[in-house]
Amino acid sequence: MAAAVEFAKSPAEVLRVGPGFSLASVDPQSTPGYTGNKADGKALLEAQDARLAELQEKLFAEGRAGSEKRLLLILQAMDTAGKGGIVSHVVGAMDVQGVQVSAFKAPTDEEKSHDFLWRIEKQVPAAGMVGVFDRSQYEDVLIHRVHGWADASELERRYAAINDFETRLAEQGTTVVKVMLNISKDEQKKRLIARLDDPTKHWKYSRTDLAERAFWDDYMAAYDLAFEKTSTDVAPWHVVPANKKWYARIAVQQLLLDALEGLDLDWPKATFDVAAERALVADS
Amino acid sequence: MAAAVEFAKSPAEVLRVGPGFSLASVDPQSTPGYTGNKADGKALLEAQDARLAELQEKLFAEGRAGSEKRLLLILQAMDTAGKGGIVSHVVGAMDVQGVQVSAFKAPTDEEKSHDFLWRIEKQVPAAGMVGVFDRSQYEDVLIHRVHGWADASELERRYAAINDFETRLAEQGTTVVKVMLNISKDEQKKRLIARLDDPTKHWKYSRTDLAERAFWDDYMAAYDLAFEKTSTDVAPWHVVPANKKWYARIAVQQLLLDALEGLDLDWPKATFDVAAERALVADS
Repeated sequence: MAAAVEFAKSPAEVLRVGPGFSLASVDPQSTPGYTGNKADGKALLEAQDARLAELQEKLFAEGRAGSEKRLLLILQAMDTAGKGGIVSHVVGAMDVQGVQVSAFKAPTDEEKSHDFLWRIEKQVPAAGMVGVFDRSQYEDVLIHRVHGWADASELERRYAAINDFETRLAEQGTTVVKVMLNISKDEQKKRLIARLDDPTKHWKYSRTDLAERAFWDDYMAAYDLAFEKTSTDVAPWHVVPANKKWYARIAVQQLLLDALEGLDLDWPKATFDVAAERALVADS
Repeated sequence: MAAAVEFAKSPAEVLRVGPGFSLASVDPQSTPGYTGNKADGKALLEAQDARLAELQEKLFAEGRAGSEKRLLLILQAMDTAGKGGIVSHVVGAMDVQGVQVSAFKAPTDEEKSHDFLWRIEKQVPAAGMVGVFDRSQYEDVLIHRVHGWADASELERRYAAINDFETRLAEQGTTVVKVMLNISKDEQKKRLIARLDDPTKHWKYSRTDLAERAFWDDYMAAYDLAFEKTSTDVAPWHVVPANKKWYARIAVQQLLLDALEGLDLDWPKATFDVAAERALVADS
């Protein structure tokens, strides 16, 4: 098998949200940093699965040995953008024992009676773990802004609270990878219709999807503002063009690989006398 | 590719713990109900991954649509018996979004200040989910019996409490699959030595493994008693010979497949007018 076509430029750089960023400047159909085609992308995804799994196991092993390192992937997107596919096809390559997926839906009455970060804090990954947030604290500055459930000053409080929260996570040893999967409004229409045309997918369709779709432009504005306020050095945002599912998957895979590589992970050294222990086992 | 060699007899039957069962009667090297060899077993495992994943997705989908069905796999075993391998190689075929793995280690001070089922209850799977317990409430009648941390009357209370608890789970819609992975004492020695001979596995070795190994016969007696007291009609035990990892994996896979098949799962029907919704999306 030929070597897989790799990224020419790192997604961590080309997809990173910097000052002055605007969603309007990104083509959801594009494949930044990658010159390969769909077949190349699929081959790359598969070729890197084992590496991703090994890095995750090392992270888990270090956690057992006392390291505080952990990883948190935050996924935000409009409906049908492919969050679920990222979790099953990218994160799914890791060992399920070391991964904790948290899907944040409409808050319960109890959750609503607390500050918005209360339910989030309970789901942050423990040392050695990979946490995945399918939606997150950002709902509280996205859907809440779009529908006016929070006023301007409350939104400002939340942006600042999120930045404080993520700074604290980073100080605790958490590498935070924030990803917005960016599909076009036309692509969403195609995917919603495809769901409706497939009886095995009807359960994924909700009439509220269509209601939220009507606020598309407001959501884009809310995302742009959230990026401006919360794409920080400790926890930058990445906007991943997602009309091509295969591209979104390799881009997120590469972001995870880069994040894990950056942790300088290794198998923990034995804290006991290996030869002595081996002799004891052999005699047992 | 030739069709995979399937089980000649159902593991749910041949591995089920019935009246008068004794661990001494099971050969950990055997492959009950399966006539194929290692290569056949590996091929079967892979061949059935997609079916397992589809059933799990249907379970998840039904949960979204209001069904109370859920699945709980309880794994108990001596160290190195392969619990982790079952989770990563069998459960790992399912979508990580629909699976919740809970590893029960030595209880915290807070957990100890509650009844033994307190921490267990918090980890039972929600509707539509597959829960996996890596160790479980059974530690409280196994290690506690072996080391005399609970006296005879307290152990009796716990067996009864466990049966009440599992009956309640079943009444709530939970299918409970209880598995003890059964390795021989010699096989454990080989595996402990293999861990010590591989620096990438040192983190998996604990000096307490050797201490517990010294109580092997007491553990076997504690397991036999636990089986006698808690292998019920609603939640029977299955003892899976586990010296051959490939066999243990296909046996547990088949137990999960049978459990899920028994739930008569299907894709939920749409609760909305599909054609009308499609027209609205097309116009949006």
